[in-house]
Amino acid sequence: MAIVVQKFGGSSVANTERIRHVADLVIREKRAGKQVVVVVSAMGKTTDNLLNMVSELSANPNPREIDMLISTGEQVTIAMLAIAIHAKGEKAISFTGPQVGIVTDNSHRKAKIVRINEEKVRRALDSDHVVIVAGFQGSTVDNEVTTLGRGGSDTTAVALAAVLKAEVCDIYTDVDGVYSADPRIVPHAHKLAEISYDEMLELASLGAKVLHSRSVELAKNYDVPLQVRSSFEDVPGTMVTKEKRDMEDIVVSGVAYNRGEAKISLIGVPDRPGVAADLFGILGAANICVDMIIQNVGESGTNDISFTVSKDDFENALNVVEKAAAELQARQVRHDKEIAKISVVGVGMKSHAGVAATMFRALARNQINIEMISTSEIKISCLIREADIDRAVHAIHEEFELEEVARQ
Amino acid sequence: MAIVVQKFGGSSVANTERIRHVADLVIREKRAGKQVVVVVSAMGKTTDNLLNMVSELSANPNPREIDMLISTGEQVTIAMLAIAIHAKGEKAISFTGPQVGIVTDNSHRKAKIVRINEEKVRRALDSDHVVIVAGFQGSTVDNEVTTLGRGGSDTTAVALAAVLKAEVCDIYTDVDGVYSADPRIVPHAHKLAEISYDEMLELASLGAKVLHSRSVELAKNYDVPLQVRSSFEDVPGTMVTKEKRDMEDIVVSGVAYNRGEAKISLIGVPDRPGVAADLFGILGAANICVDMIIQNVGESGTNDISFTVSKDDFENALNVVEKAAAELQARQVRHDKEIAKISVVGVGMKSHAGVAATMFRALARNQINIEMISTSEIKISCLIREADIDRAVHAIHEEFELEEVARQ
Repeated sequence: MAIVVQKFGGSSVANTERIRHVADLVIREKRAGKQVVVVVSAMGKTTDNLLNMVSELSANPNPREIDMLISTGEQVTIAMLAIAIHAKGEKAISFTGPQVGIVTDNSHRKAKIVRINEEKVRRALDSDHVVIVAGFQGSTVDNEVTTLGRGGSDTTAVALAAVLKAEVCDIYTDVDGVYSADPRIVPHAHKLAEISYDEMLELASLGAKVLHSRSVELAKNYDVPLQVRSSFEDVPGTMVTKEKRDMEDIVVSGVAYNRGEAKISLIGVPDRPGVAADLFGILGAANICVDMIIQNVGESGTNDISFTVSKDDFENALNVVEKAAAELQARQVRHDKEIAKISVVGVGMKSHAGVAATMFRALARNQINIEMISTSEIKISCLIREADIDRAVHAIHEEFELEEVARQ
Repeated sequence: MAIVVQKFGGSSVANTERIRHVADLVIREKRAGKQVVVVVSAMGKTTDNLLNMVSELSANPNPREIDMLISTGEQVTIAMLAIAIHAKGEKAISFTGPQVGIVTDNSHRKAKIVRINEEKVRRALDSDHVVIVAGFQGSTVDNEVTTLGRGGSDTTAVALAAVLKAEVCDIYTDVDGVYSADPRIVPHAHKLAEISYDEMLELASLGAKVLHSRSVELAKNYDVPLQVRSSFEDVPGTMVTKEKRDMEDIVVSGVAYNRGEAKISLIGVPDRPGVAADLFGILGAANICVDMIIQNVGESGTNDISFTVSKDDFENALNVVEKAAAELQARQVRHDKEIAKISVVGVGMKSHAGVAATMFRALARNQINIEMISTSEIKISCLIREADIDRAVHAIHEEFELEEVARQ
């Protein structure tokens, strides 16, 4: 029997009324003849509320205890959803991440899934149960509770879909798909019927809130078809799949932006081999992910190195860099939180020339200054002033005539 | 090194301010040179709030899922308390019941502890940690989450104190000890400095809210010294210990009452052997605990059997009895929820005559009718109208001159 994995985020299970609605969506799939595995997040703002309580107790709480604390959020949802499904007459059983055999490494708050022992899920599916799994969590081989960090529930869903060889992993959320640009900024943005993993990956890592890049990467690696769809409206979503030939006809699929990064610069670093390796080695050891990097030649045999990190990691990264500055013989450390990143993404870029020039032209025409540039095979990103971001999104969306593209 | 187990109930950990205060009480004990194990309940009304949410989804929720749900309450508290203790500079580590090896049978919502694998606690204590354990919960050998039902957190604390051979199990609560009567009804009631397990057991089972009989029984069986004390005020509490010779000098230690029971009567049951065994066998099979039982000779060779159950079990018990009534050939089933039980307790009763008569006289003088009587070696209980309960407590407390007794 075909297996479907459904994932519902926090807003989709924010209260008992929403949970009842999710129960309906689950049961519809089951009654259509599927074996259904459901992955849920914590209800609404539960996790934030728990973390707010913690901040009343400690500025620097122990990550192990935070995992112990916040993993309760998903556990509440799984039980509530099981009860809601029972009340509608279907069999369902809930499992926590540790219970269902989601084994992770021991990086608390940022754990990675090492393996999934899927027998428990299979047995429950085979005895006609909807299986409800707490997203975002697992346990180490020592039975310590861990959480998977950002995008954790999506990752749980995709990982389960991969090991269970599900026919689709439906990611239900509060938007109804992936758009050519943020519809709050560009009202004429259009919903994409399908998008390749690589494009989605770029969009996700560029700040499109719909899916976290981690889960898309996992889906790509295990060839899990993903669907982003709305738990509020019953309309088709966006399929995220393997790249198809005709996707190349479209040069740019979407415009993404991200206000969530900050820039740190080391000024006047000696121009000798190994400096960049040392710097990013230190940051890596501190578990800080770096996004964009540029290095310029500075004054008299020195270099300037700039990089961006997530705002969440900013304080930490700045600390690490300031401590390392002497060792690296940097003259100065500067930082800037008023920046934002704008990107265009499209598999068509591989076979179309001039995409970068088109993007830069759109920004220039609007007097928007570019501070850093980074490119990949299928995306171009520019760091600009945060205040310019809305204008930049409009300009680029228009320049590539995305409002007129309709892939369907 | 001596081990102390401290247990804090829901009101003692109701918010972050209270949790910080609990952290102080824990650290005081640790800095006095003890190894400290802390057992906590869910914060304030958390469990009730979760159950209220459930009632919006289902009138008859699955007990397994309820355990999954409500066990999150204690898990939140242990993490919060660990973080609060860290912030004050001491080492602490939290464990859920399943994690720490509290193995139970599989009666969801009423599970019994089968064994405790205490190695994890010992290891953490020996590495200088305060060990914080989620009360009220455990897991079956199949790794299913269970909760221990009423008095569950006290039971966890006493069971841990027993396996760890703790020198004392301090039960911190919102009252500062055990009184000769409920001080809200009898302002002159006095606090007992000490009380025997058996007396406490009777008081607990009679409705004194301080300790659940289950935990007292466990303490008695494993000879764990218990102390009931206040987490709000720093005053000596009541020690619950083995019976001592001088305890017998006091005839009655306390007066207890319970509004939490309901009466069910089977009228006109055939007077033949085995009827009572059948009836209470059926109730036992439904996991319903019966408290008082009386059987009267009724009309023409039939009997009337009355019994009381906890109001929580009442609907369930009534269902069971109404279904069994035909089989038992009972003419009629009656029920009454407007009753209450008043009791006097004292080890001195064993060696003093006339205690029952004194109690009945006090009730009679106040025109309070007795509906059922039940006695044990150290207690006498009477079922009366619920409306009479305050007057009855006053009358009896006065009759036995309890306000003048001071054991200290």
